[in-house]
Amino acid sequence: MSTQSTPSVGIEFNTVRNVKDALTLASSQKYDFLVIPIIRKQYGTDLLTSYGSKQLTWPSIASRLKGVGESADMSTALVALIRHVIDVDSPNLHIRNKATKLLQEELAAAQYFSVARVIIRIRNGNIINLTRIAASTLNTLYFAYWFVFPTCAPGNFDDDNEAELQPWLWWNKIYKLLDYHGKVYPVLELSADIPSEQAQKRWLGEPVRAVILPTKIFTTNAKGYPVLSPAHQLFIIKLIKLKVQFIIKGINPNDSTLFEPYLQYLKHITRQTEPINRVLESFTHGYEDRLQVPLQPLADNLESRTYEIFEKDPIKYVQYEKAIYQALVEQYDQKTTVIIMVVGAGRGPLVNRALEAADRAKYKVHIYAVEKNPMAIISLYSQKQEWGDRVTIIHEDMRSWHPECKADIMVSELLGSFGDNELSPECLDGAQRYLKDDGISIPYSYTSYICPVQSPRIFSELLYNRDANKPYYANFETPFVVYLHNCFFLAETKPLFTFMHPNFSIPIDNSRYDEVEFTIPTTGTMHGLAGFFEAKLYKDISISIEPNTHSKNLISWFPMFFPIREPITLATNSKIKVNFWRCCSSSQVWYEWTVIEPTTLPIHNPTGRSFSIGK
Amino acid sequence: MSTQSTPSVGIEFNTVRNVKDALTLASSQKYDFLVIPIIRKQYGTDLLTSYGSKQLTWPSIASRLKGVGESADMSTALVALIRHVIDVDSPNLHIRNKATKLLQEELAAAQYFSVARVIIRIRNGNIINLTRIAASTLNTLYFAYWFVFPTCAPGNFDDDNEAELQPWLWWNKIYKLLDYHGKVYPVLELSADIPSEQAQKRWLGEPVRAVILPTKIFTTNAKGYPVLSPAHQLFIIKLIKLKVQFIIKGINPNDSTLFEPYLQYLKHITRQTEPINRVLESFTHGYEDRLQVPLQPLADNLESRTYEIFEKDPIKYVQYEKAIYQALVEQYDQKTTVIIMVVGAGRGPLVNRALEAADRAKYKVHIYAVEKNPMAIISLYSQKQEWGDRVTIIHEDMRSWHPECKADIMVSELLGSFGDNELSPECLDGAQRYLKDDGISIPYSYTSYICPVQSPRIFSELLYNRDANKPYYANFETPFVVYLHNCFFLAETKPLFTFMHPNFSIPIDNSRYDEVEFTIPTTGTMHGLAGFFEAKLYKDISISIEPNTHSKNLISWFPMFFPIREPITLATNSKIKVNFWRCCSSSQVWYEWTVIEPTTLPIHNPTGRSFSIGK
Repeated sequence: MSTQSTPSVGIEFNTVRNVKDALTLASSQKYDFLVIPIIRKQYGTDLLTSYGSKQLTWPSIASRLKGVGESADMSTALVALIRHVIDVDSPNLHIRNKATKLLQEELAAAQYFSVARVIIRIRNGNIINLTRIAASTLNTLYFAYWFVFPTCAPGNFDDDNEAELQPWLWWNKIYKLLDYHGKVYPVLELSADIPSEQAQKRWLGEPVRAVILPTKIFTTNAKGYPVLSPAHQLFIIKLIKLKVQFIIKGINPNDSTLFEPYLQYLKHITRQTEPINRVLESFTHGYEDRLQVPLQPLADNLESRTYEIFEKDPIKYVQYEKAIYQALVEQYDQKTTVIIMVVGAGRGPLVNRALEAADRAKYKVHIYAVEKNPMAIISLYSQKQEWGDRVTIIHEDMRSWHPECKADIMVSELLGSFGDNELSPECLDGAQRYLKDDGISIPYSYTSYICPVQSPRIFSELLYNRDANKPYYANFETPFVVYLHNCFFLAETKPLFTFMHPNFSIPIDNSRYDEVEFTIPTTGTMHGLAGFFEAKLYKDISISIEPNTHSKNLISWFPMFFPIREPITLATNSKIKVNFWRCCSSSQVWYEWTVIEPTTLPIHNPTGRSFSIGK
Repeated sequence: MSTQSTPSVGIEFNTVRNVKDALTLASSQKYDFLVIPIIRKQYGTDLLTSYGSKQLTWPSIASRLKGVGESADMSTALVALIRHVIDVDSPNLHIRNKATKLLQEELAAAQYFSVARVIIRIRNGNIINLTRIAASTLNTLYFAYWFVFPTCAPGNFDDDNEAELQPWLWWNKIYKLLDYHGKVYPVLELSADIPSEQAQKRWLGEPVRAVILPTKIFTTNAKGYPVLSPAHQLFIIKLIKLKVQFIIKGINPNDSTLFEPYLQYLKHITRQTEPINRVLESFTHGYEDRLQVPLQPLADNLESRTYEIFEKDPIKYVQYEKAIYQALVEQYDQKTTVIIMVVGAGRGPLVNRALEAADRAKYKVHIYAVEKNPMAIISLYSQKQEWGDRVTIIHEDMRSWHPECKADIMVSELLGSFGDNELSPECLDGAQRYLKDDGISIPYSYTSYICPVQSPRIFSELLYNRDANKPYYANFETPFVVYLHNCFFLAETKPLFTFMHPNFSIPIDNSRYDEVEFTIPTTGTMHGLAGFFEAKLYKDISISIEPNTHSKNLISWFPMFFPIREPITLATNSKIKVNFWRCCSSSQVWYEWTVIEPTTLPIHNPTGRSFSIGK
């Protein structure tokens, strides 16, 4: 059962006599908005004649648009389809100049009638003057630009890949020229042919705002209702997850019987979207692509609410319980009391799981719950009665505690989205003094993974939401925790840094360096690196947020995102070389990173100047 | 005769017993500085043993460096040759970690002894960890980094071009990784083979700080003195113009007879530099690569001093006189009085030239000197007695003046470095009302030219000298006037916008747009576009700062520089597509520009947000 709400659906008319009447019609037929040219083609000449005369005389436009703009509702429901587009990039100076003036007038009219969105259809890659005109209005006109692209370029191409790549290249060029402005979106116009999987993924990485469905791509089912092919349905279902709006195009405004079936069909498809995992949904809803500064539980004490959220994870503690159980039965015997130390016990979930594992295995255990956060200690003591003598609560930083005995099993959950980024290595290195020589660390190993990612939505966010008090590069040198949603993974993830516990190297060096090379199977633009981790708890029992091995329903960690300062558009089969460092000083740990192939970027975050983690 | 002062010359020793004694020796032999490793190789182990012990014990280093750092002079004269370099990029973790610690200690020692420059020899492209270590010190250690490159990479390459390109690619990568930091310079170590002309030009576009001359590349002349080949001499002469320093390497410190001949030889070469054009020198000295905001003589009134400087141009007025003379004798007869209007007369130099032309041709003329600047009017009146009745002084803006009669010849000099950028088109369009139907405008045409340019020195300047009150992109959207010196023109210049006068189009449109394509003959990095102009005064009589047609000794205009936001490294034979607009509103004129191939950049300066010219 889906809780996905029905998407907003609009209807596109090529022309109508009176815009206000059309708005009323669309609304009465339950359509959310109307897409329509607000200027009739023949008004072009009127506009040009009046251009520059200062006394604008738009009688025919005025009568057609009578009543439009009277209410805010009406403006929201009206999407202006811009007519005078192609000729602004004509090689003929006269045609270009005339078209430019017409386009500027048309945009001014849209602004006058307070429309919130304009639609511009892009038919080829000659978009440079069109884009410049859009750029010149972005900070003065209020509407958003919806640029419409076919999924496949018309004309002759060597192969289908090339034909379906072209429209994305046009969009990529427009978006880069407009410097990833937040009022600029792509809209896809579907055709009878459905894009390849790679092309779909590439578009799903863009901030697609709407999808146009021409009625001619529908077929009629046995009951006489319009339906789409299964391939179309699958693509649309993916688009619905990006919260796109739909536009039905090609209905005769005079045939009111056609309005409802298309709406019904879209409702029907929406119901086909995957059954929602309610736990996952409650964790991710509203967090899609939202940038969060990573927690620093070592330097800052977490709030009870934060513990509360993480304790809800349906799989993490199951895995820990399994790991502790397996370690007990494989490594120890039931006669002796096994000393388990939970370092970083928080409010106690791992203490409970250790107790459950011991009960299930029928083992005697004594548990030390070590926690530095004084507020979490209160929560621990509140469970003391229940736990009895089997649990000793220790209010200490695990790195400085001097216990009376050593541990058989040391259990911790100090992992961040990137594995080591909450300083699990530094903490466990400090704690392993009181792990027996043959003792076990759960987890015993964790590895970070990276993957180049196309994520223009995040790039735009970083570009436009800067803290004016920080240097211009600060946002681009800060790793964020983010539920990656509207993005495209450009290559397979690769492992980066691994840490093992216990670690008996002398001296222990937790700094790391690696160069990782990726091959890009298909064209895309890199905006940063996604980061993940996989942790081995005991033998094969693991938890992972790395896409290929992701533990089902594990919700405690969103991926990391490491930005890069300049977007890099990559051709099919090109190689990326990424360099990554984990740097340590006496008081801080930080990452530095850069790209050196196919182009060299500055080293990001040198000396941890924009972001570091306090020890 | 050259006024070029002798460059600073240093001497490099591989090792000496006592650094202070070596400094005294170099100084007594008239060398300006000494390049020497401050750490002996065998001290590496001592350093490592002491590393991390907190109690640093450097007895042997201390005795060798006894007295060093005692005076500021000594620190200036000492350049530390860094020894522990190569292994920091070893694939072996242990070797890399050890080398990293040694390098950090060596840099710390250089800092302790207050050296102002360290030299690091680069032998291959594995420089990523080395560069990261340098990056981590740039804001905490005081010295500058001199990275030394061979002119030709050792090893087997397909051809010579590839071998001599490699070291530049290493430098390009280092400089990009270090984000064009102002304390980072390349140093060239010459060998017996001299680089190709393209490779020389590429290096001359980099901020080369010094040149190392090994004694083994010298031959001995008939008199027994060391000399270099003519090809070496020519390259060195070009480098001297960049004010590089020299380092002689390979002299036996115990053979004091060898010290002087090399110094003498460098003095000798310095005297070979081109005879200096004193007028040119007085105009350009100190302005090399310095960014100046273009004048806006239309919006702002110029100072008398500014007029004074421009009036010194030895060729501009000669060309105007020729043009006026030729126009008089070819188009008019001696019987009638020819009406000449000098629009924008300034302090009167063109009035004088018009009178001279008339006298020389024995023509009767009446001259109207039209000038809006009230202070310049004072200067004009001061010459009135001399001029007599032949000159009428008009204190008016040429665009609004209503004269009693019309002009036969309209003479103006309203040109900026980019031709139209001081709004000559707008001014002359306003003035042509009072030009007779068959009247002549001098100039009658001007064209701007552009050329992609490698200019890391300017890029660095733009990156690090930002106005904190302006948006981060402002510097990169402002065209500057700059005497381009330390730069490399990546392609042939191409024409951009042309204006013709008089202009009888209705309406007159002074906005312009063009896309220009360049092919890059050899690898380089683009940091912006150089801008020039050529103006046709009368028929073939012209003035030009466009490199291919540059009027000899024309000194009134330095080129323009249009920055781009991201450097673009271009392979041999790659294509660049640049788009350029001249935009006009009722009160402003501005340029917008961008690059769309091989990569797409944002449109620079949309709506003139960072720079515009007031009408």
